[in-house]
Amino acid sequence: MTSTDEIMPGLQTLDGPVGPDAPATPDPTFASDNTAGVSPEVLEAIARANGGAAVPYGDDPVTARLEQVVRDQFGPSAEIFPVFNGTGANVVSLQALLPRWGAAICARQAHVNTDEGAAPERLGALKLLARPTPEGKLTPADVEAELGAQGFVHAAQPLAVTLTQSTELGSLYSPAEIAAVADRAHAAGLGVHMDGARLANAAAALGVSLREVTIDVGVDVLSLGGTKNGALAAEAVVVLDPTRVRGTDYIRKYSMQLASKQRFVSAQLLELFGTDLWRSNAEHANAQARLLGERLATLEGIDLPAPAQVNAVFPKMPATVVEELQSRYLFHVWDTAPDGDPVVRLMCSFQTTEAQIDEFVDHARAALTARLPDAR
Amino acid sequence: MTSTDEIMPGLQTLDGPVGPDAPATPDPTFASDNTAGVSPEVLEAIARANGGAAVPYGDDPVTARLEQVVRDQFGPSAEIFPVFNGTGANVVSLQALLPRWGAAICARQAHVNTDEGAAPERLGALKLLARPTPEGKLTPADVEAELGAQGFVHAAQPLAVTLTQSTELGSLYSPAEIAAVADRAHAAGLGVHMDGARLANAAAALGVSLREVTIDVGVDVLSLGGTKNGALAAEAVVVLDPTRVRGTDYIRKYSMQLASKQRFVSAQLLELFGTDLWRSNAEHANAQARLLGERLATLEGIDLPAPAQVNAVFPKMPATVVEELQSRYLFHVWDTAPDGDPVVRLMCSFQTTEAQIDEFVDHARAALTARLPDAR
Amino acid sequence: MTSTDEIMPGLQTLDGPVGPDAPATPDPTFASDNTAGVSPEVLEAIARANGGAAVPYGDDPVTARLEQVVRDQFGPSAEIFPVFNGTGANVVSLQALLPRWGAAICARQAHVNTDEGAAPERLGALKLLARPTPEGKLTPADVEAELGAQGFVHAAQPLAVTLTQSTELGSLYSPAEIAAVADRAHAAGLGVHMDGARLANAAAALGVSLREVTIDVGVDVLSLGGTKNGALAAEAVVVLDPTRVRGTDYIRKYSMQLASKQRFVSAQLLELFGTDLWRSNAEHANAQARLLGERLATLEGIDLPAPAQVNAVFPKMPATVVEELQSRYLFHVWDTAPDGDPVVRLMCSFQTTEAQIDEFVDHARAALTARLPDAR
Amino acid sequence: MTSTDEIMPGLQTLDGPVGPDAPATPDPTFASDNTAGVSPEVLEAIARANGGAAVPYGDDPVTARLEQVVRDQFGPSAEIFPVFNGTGANVVSLQALLPRWGAAICARQAHVNTDEGAAPERLGALKLLARPTPEGKLTPADVEAELGAQGFVHAAQPLAVTLTQSTELGSLYSPAEIAAVADRAHAAGLGVHMDGARLANAAAALGVSLREVTIDVGVDVLSLGGTKNGALAAEAVVVLDPTRVRGTDYIRKYSMQLASKQRFVSAQLLELFGTDLWRSNAEHANAQARLLGERLATLEGIDLPAPAQVNAVFPKMPATVVEELQSRYLFHVWDTAPDGDPVVRLMCSFQTTEAQIDEFVDHARAALTARLPDAR
Repeated sequence: MTSTDEIMPGLQTLDGPVGPDAPATPDPTFASDNTAGVSPEVLEAIARANGGAAVPYGDDPVTARLEQVVRDQFGPSAEIFPVFNGTGANVVSLQALLPRWGAAICARQAHVNTDEGAAPERLGALKLLARPTPEGKLTPADVEAELGAQGFVHAAQPLAVTLTQSTELGSLYSPAEIAAVADRAHAAGLGVHMDGARLANAAAALGVSLREVTIDVGVDVLSLGGTKNGALAAEAVVVLDPTRVRGTDYIRKYSMQLASKQRFVSAQLLELFGTDLWRSNAEHANAQARLLGERLATLEGIDLPAPAQVNAVFPKMPATVVEELQSRYLFHVWDTAPDGDPVVRLMCSFQTTEAQIDEFVDHARAALTARLPDAR
Repeated sequence: MTSTDEIMPGLQTLDGPVGPDAPATPDPTFASDNTAGVSPEVLEAIARANGGAAVPYGDDPVTARLEQVVRDQFGPSAEIFPVFNGTGANVVSLQALLPRWGAAICARQAHVNTDEGAAPERLGALKLLARPTPEGKLTPADVEAELGAQGFVHAAQPLAVTLTQSTELGSLYSPAEIAAVADRAHAAGLGVHMDGARLANAAAALGVSLREVTIDVGVDVLSLGGTKNGALAAEAVVVLDPTRVRGTDYIRKYSMQLASKQRFVSAQLLELFGTDLWRSNAEHANAQARLLGERLATLEGIDLPAPAQVNAVFPKMPATVVEELQSRYLFHVWDTAPDGDPVVRLMCSFQTTEAQIDEFVDHARAALTARLPDAR
Repeated sequence: MTSTDEIMPGLQTLDGPVGPDAPATPDPTFASDNTAGVSPEVLEAIARANGGAAVPYGDDPVTARLEQVVRDQFGPSAEIFPVFNGTGANVVSLQALLPRWGAAICARQAHVNTDEGAAPERLGALKLLARPTPEGKLTPADVEAELGAQGFVHAAQPLAVTLTQSTELGSLYSPAEIAAVADRAHAAGLGVHMDGARLANAAAALGVSLREVTIDVGVDVLSLGGTKNGALAAEAVVVLDPTRVRGTDYIRKYSMQLASKQRFVSAQLLELFGTDLWRSNAEHANAQARLLGERLATLEGIDLPAPAQVNAVFPKMPATVVEELQSRYLFHVWDTAPDGDPVVRLMCSFQTTEAQIDEFVDHARAALTARLPDAR
Repeated sequence: MTSTDEIMPGLQTLDGPVGPDAPATPDPTFASDNTAGVSPEVLEAIARANGGAAVPYGDDPVTARLEQVVRDQFGPSAEIFPVFNGTGANVVSLQALLPRWGAAICARQAHVNTDEGAAPERLGALKLLARPTPEGKLTPADVEAELGAQGFVHAAQPLAVTLTQSTELGSLYSPAEIAAVADRAHAAGLGVHMDGARLANAAAALGVSLREVTIDVGVDVLSLGGTKNGALAAEAVVVLDPTRVRGTDYIRKYSMQLASKQRFVSAQLLELFGTDLWRSNAEHANAQARLLGERLATLEGIDLPAPAQVNAVFPKMPATVVEELQSRYLFHVWDTAPDGDPVVRLMCSFQTTEAQIDEFVDHARAALTARLPDAR
């Protein structure tokens, strides 16, 4: 997703506005999980929240119920601050976790480093200490490697670590892996942030509760994702350890992430996390990605280095096949395999259907067949 | 709305989260126009936008239609950048209008100065040159008064003026008044921004088109309000003079105001501004405020210094009556009259009903009657 | 010094680079106390510090001696952080005193508000809550007036007050006046900063020690001025209450105010504050301003509303006399008297001589005489 | 110099304030070129500038002469803006070169990335796109690798490249190498900044004029170093292509880098660059480093992978020898050789003497001899 990353030299960035030369017709279904629409239950919840007047800026009954749900899900100290988008959640979280002189350790491929237009630096006045990682996952050794700068007045002070769960590369941290990073971080005085834009997918894939991959393993503040999981536009900062996180309400306000009619943001999150919708939507997306991967892997000429861990699958296929498929579908070329073939990213969402998968696989099969005479 | 303002010493700030001592029950109907819900047509438009997958971040068909509507409404050079909220629209606009060393002249009572948690300064690195104004309206003389700092390296450079239409004090600029300020500004090299969170109310009250109070009278970039006019959460930066406004797309992104599922933000604005809904909603709100004012003015003990110009009315009433009414309704005490009585702000919205007005007036009448024995 | 200030409509701003039309010849002696050179003792101290190599960035013996001097002058908890200039001292101090969501109450005429190019806002992400004041001095009532915003999430939080001693208008706070403001501030949870660019002049005029107008009366962090008092370029942040001021060393570094060869900055401050030079230089400047005022006041046609409190004097004189004098001398027109005559600012420094004063007075006398036939 | 750098795992950072456990006595001579004092000629120039009053903030005769010198050295379009320190020069330069949405490509080891406390990010709201480089030098391929992000709204826009000459690793760009990077940058619309904190050492080593390694090979804006070359505290932003660099005077002011008594900063630069002092000081430093390297290389047990290119030398020596030497001298361990031995950095300055070199070599010889029985 970033051109700054050595690991993905062939990356094409379709996640943003595609250029003028992009075909008008390609199907965006598999391009990202944010090409999906709104989960019907979420839309209904918004409509239900629409009765009469309500106190703005979060002092409404829907938000109050959401706050209770969050305490139920994450424990009694948890506080939720709904925001508009993932960048907002991340930049508010990191500001609340870090003093003015702080820096956050992240994976080089982290969304916060590559896809947020430098919002953390520009708006949060934060330095990101970006670490190369094989699959987008930080380890205690990454924390360790930055600690030499502590107390060195010339260096931005490493005082937080930010993990993405699930990662931008479709990988997953186990709870134990998170705990290991968090323990090392806390021991050195760093706070722990999780970018959980796809936390639902991760928890569903791991078969654990939300708290088992967050507060129980040392996460201090969480960017909780709703939009990719079926919301219209709803994310949240969830403060898990209030002793490490300060001023979140003021920071959210000046960071331009406080909705006046907040009940409608809260209603989306309440519908997702106050029921099992977050898990069922995520399980569906994960299952469809696995299915898509399995079916593609049956085709001669397509390799699947690893099964889908969450809702993304990264098949390797011949360049001519990619070309043919991209005339019909929007998706990213994500990497180049050692043999020179492109590795692409295909994502599924809560609304991906088996019919859509079948159609994609059919097109892939046709493209593979068409190229056989080339005897590549 | 600001404790920093000498003009309103008695102001109570209820617009934000009310404190723990606030009664749970008071009716927020008249507290602000953002206590209203979502206009039903807007909710339907969101639902209609929910078919299937769409390219995220604004390259979707709904946004394309909105872009055409904006060109129709504001002229062929106009470009729209939907955002989440009004602070976002203002801070993106001002950054796109100003170089790093710029400052914006505003009325001291401007929302951007008093109610945005210093987002312009903190996130936009902007200085606001706040001018005392009798009714929240800037004049050419206000621009003039700041020009002495131009070229003086020690001073933040006055390179923009920001007008609020309608103002935070419920007043209106006529098109000629805007043109006068814009002419003076342009002559001195300043750009012109309009905070149009309530532009619909203003245009409806003036009986003019949107362009007649913006691009036609010299506005270079506009914060176009949707939320107070019936949207769920939808505002926009509208660039009117692209020669004066640069980098808006990048600035919107890093300012954390770019929605991934943007079609749903665009759908709200399309419904409002692609039909006459913006005007009918605004006319309704304005008419209800006028009606509320007229009915209150018939009560002995309540004075209405001026009729409602848009959707706010500022009656003066005895303190004991305010106290009684505030046990039932949320609203702001906005000022203190020369005789010591409070002046309150009551706002109407697209969904305020005559029955709600009648009920409020009845409570006011009862409160006035109850206090008669006091022979104040 | 600022065109944004209603109180000084006729102000001409000569303090910065004068324009291309400014005469090359006018004498800058009375334009500001920063037109002076370096005190000879300070220059010698710099030369003495120049023996051999030293650890950079403040871990040198000269800085160590300065740190001891500061503890002697301000008490055992005081810590000094030398910086390059006054804006640097102010912006580092305020960042160390305020959380990310904080705002600082200041006088509208404060240097930090009018003459620092918006550095506090742009680099410190601070909001300044500027109060109109008759003579540049804040009172407990000014603090009180801003407290209503505390806890109101939409407002930048008033969490510090910044006083200038002596003020930009040549006035002085008595220790009791500072204590009154500081007490009110502390009682409400605000920290207290003093912009002491001319603290030496103030302490000399009041006949008190440095600590009697700072730590003893509640100042938490001080911008200690050296440059106007005879240094080449040396100011400092002095932390007086370390429990309220955090991260100063890191903030100084990233605020680009940490000198590599810091011993030479420290040497200047050590010479001034490790001896009585700070006081004798300040007393000289103050005395010369008083003398200049007294002599001008003897001239018919020149009025001196008040004697010089520190090293600035503000005589009122006919416009034609100002014009004639400005062809020979650089100085500011500072205000317009009720009768329309300009009020000018004349400043003296540690190196202003009686001969220079006599010469200026002679020119003023001649100009007054020359205009008599005009029978103004 | 940075703990974030994989290339230098064994780095010890002594460049900042050494910790409380550091011996008080070690000689800092070879620790950095900023441990040196002030060149006597520079000190005399400061004293000469001290006659009488002068207009502050740069409108003085000394600065006027410096401006002429800069035009002589760099061509008629060159403009100089003296500042206090190198971080100031870099952050002012990059802000003047980049729009709000810009990012600068740099070597990962660049001072701007590792040793400026995140000032570029925090104060300039800039993203640094840090590239791994073998010897701290960027190539056209590094520029190329970042260009994919251009036009991608989610990414900070690569719109500048910043080169350090000579580099933090003691290496040098040839004029042709700079031209190659600048050509690629300009072709893609990027501006070119040079961090020339040690430009004098580089030009002296290359035997070229200042303009031959800057404006003649495509540098648009330069941080011109004085301090490491013998100044007290004097650096400058030199604008070479005014069409690409905007607002420098305003940016310098709000970046807190404008000296009130600027003549004394200008005098230092005038003395260095208005004479051949910059070159003779640099040549001396370079020659001493070469000499130190040559003499150390004669000792058995010490290897010198490469001769000194400028004023730093990086000998490899046994850990026990480093330990012994560090009890006497402050210097950095910079890297670990493949055989596990430390590689250290020793720097020379304009005032390093041959006697100091001999003494160091003697201590090294003694330490090597003492360890022989260990038969390592």
